[in-house]
Amino acid sequence: MPDNNVAIRFVRTPGSGPLTADVFDLAPDPLPTLGQGDILVRSIYLSIDAGSRAQIDPHSDYVFKASLGDILGCSGLVGEVVDSRHPGWRPGDLVATTRGRCARYQVLGENPAQHTYKLDPGAAPLAAHLGILGMVGFTAYVGMFDIGQPAAADTVLVSAAAGATGSVAGQLAKIAGARVVGIAGGIEKCRLVVDEFGFDDCIDYKGGDLSAAIARACPDGVDVYYENVGGAIQKAAFAAMNDFGRIAMCGQIGQYSGAGAEPGPNLMCVVLKRLTIKGFLVRDHMARHGEFIANASRWYREGRLKHHATVTRGLENFHEAINSLTEGRNVGKQLCQVADEPG
Amino acid sequence: MPDNNVAIRFVRTPGSGPLTADVFDLAPDPLPTLGQGDILVRSIYLSIDAGSRAQIDPHSDYVFKASLGDILGCSGLVGEVVDSRHPGWRPGDLVATTRGRCARYQVLGENPAQHTYKLDPGAAPLAAHLGILGMVGFTAYVGMFDIGQPAAADTVLVSAAAGATGSVAGQLAKIAGARVVGIAGGIEKCRLVVDEFGFDDCIDYKGGDLSAAIARACPDGVDVYYENVGGAIQKAAFAAMNDFGRIAMCGQIGQYSGAGAEPGPNLMCVVLKRLTIKGFLVRDHMARHGEFIANASRWYREGRLKHHATVTRGLENFHEAINSLTEGRNVGKQLCQVADEPG
Repeated sequence: MPDNNVAIRFVRTPGSGPLTADVFDLAPDPLPTLGQGDILVRSIYLSIDAGSRAQIDPHSDYVFKASLGDILGCSGLVGEVVDSRHPGWRPGDLVATTRGRCARYQVLGENPAQHTYKLDPGAAPLAAHLGILGMVGFTAYVGMFDIGQPAAADTVLVSAAAGATGSVAGQLAKIAGARVVGIAGGIEKCRLVVDEFGFDDCIDYKGGDLSAAIARACPDGVDVYYENVGGAIQKAAFAAMNDFGRIAMCGQIGQYSGAGAEPGPNLMCVVLKRLTIKGFLVRDHMARHGEFIANASRWYREGRLKHHATVTRGLENFHEAINSLTEGRNVGKQLCQVADEPG
Repeated sequence: MPDNNVAIRFVRTPGSGPLTADVFDLAPDPLPTLGQGDILVRSIYLSIDAGSRAQIDPHSDYVFKASLGDILGCSGLVGEVVDSRHPGWRPGDLVATTRGRCARYQVLGENPAQHTYKLDPGAAPLAAHLGILGMVGFTAYVGMFDIGQPAAADTVLVSAAAGATGSVAGQLAKIAGARVVGIAGGIEKCRLVVDEFGFDDCIDYKGGDLSAAIARACPDGVDVYYENVGGAIQKAAFAAMNDFGRIAMCGQIGQYSGAGAEPGPNLMCVVLKRLTIKGFLVRDHMARHGEFIANASRWYREGRLKHHATVTRGLENFHEAINSLTEGRNVGKQLCQVADEPG
């Protein structure tokens, strides 16, 4: 057992805006002895997502809220098994879990509150198991196919289109045959959304009148909106919906930055256009996780699902990894790399 | 043919607040000659609903928007056939239509844009055919059974509970076996909602802290919210929803009074609680109208569905009938009575 394990501890309530380094420190995190069925895992990549910021936000009502002094949880990590008392896992195996600690090492086991599973390292790059093959990919899969249900003639609008979930959501809508328009921040990201992720068009929300840009890019209106951001983008997208449109809501990243809850759009359009808005959390859908992994791995092999990740190196830069996400500097999945990938 | 027919003409854009008499005038409305399949109908009751106000509101994007000089449409009327060139209808028959003119007399016929049907005058009082047996009853039926789908253990919250649609929605939820809590304005209305309409409890939204009152009246949270109002009530109700709750939206009466569109609630709760919000317009569901009439007539006979109407007499008081509704003075269905019921 490593005897100098460390983890990210939450020590200072952040203000609004970028996190400073003193919000966290690296605290000793002694490891428990492995029980029957447990594995000891060396963290390689930690998932950085909206919840990473929300858990320390004094205004958020995020489910996994951290208190000052707590070791931070993380909603996903990929690591290598270094010791095992589990019959199915051996040292050297690569695993992912849906709920872990922001620590160099940790003990995982059979825990109904987390879903820990062995990776197929040949299926895709290791980081992709937290991206297109991870919970964000699965989130896009549930949101697009269960709620959005785009038909081939439909127009699908995807917010945060260069981000981890949005980039997958749009690619899945393309696989379904729809016309897909993204919204992203900046010309460079928009180029990537079209050229790399294969969207038909992408709107730069920093480029002026958003409603007019949506109208231009979606001349037949919007049938499915994949909602990820809240705020002004949400409002403009709601206004562009067609009758009987579907809005899949898996988060509002703009709502996690410490500014408190802004009002939402007036919902009269929901009546007049007979919209369906459905929020979801992917953890309610774990029964279909195997089906998702099989389909997404195949689409990756076929080149229909592209992987991108933005990696911030070093546990000591964890706050910077969060800032990269909340300031929208990431392309694809934002990760914090804690250790090198195995040789 | 009556040669001095008159109708309500829209002649002045209203400001916010109550309508003044000069918004309308009574204009000559010459009647066309009856064609094959047409009937001439003497109006008895005109339906007053949110659309009555919305159609003349400069800020509204209501579908049936009136321009200055237009004869007003109405979304429902009950009348007596006085002449007929239709094989199925004879003078003396009582009919309802889902789209007519605010006029003393009018010609109706086979028109796909309106649904005109013969009433069973023995089923309920004539006014009830625009209330519990009318489109508002049908709206409550679709919203509660198709979208809300309350189970017997569920708590159902109904806004505008003393109003035409809300009072039916709550009674239908009681028929489904749920615990039903209303929200209405004033102690007198709340008493009526409980004593007359059989709700389990009713919250007076004028009585102080609405969120605290909802928490008290719904100790197990809210599973189904029947949304009718928008604004502060909508916001408080959204915050009280249980995980996997359903919100049926058929209108936002608070949004029609000329004040323009207020922001809605922040929608982060939709994600975290995995809510479904569904807007609907009853005209999309006409295939089930016969089923509704049969069920609602039976529930009325059995005493499980109570009828109330607030009647403003006289076509010249049409603006007052609208004010009665928008100011919440009505109990049950708001009507404008144009002529006496047949002896």
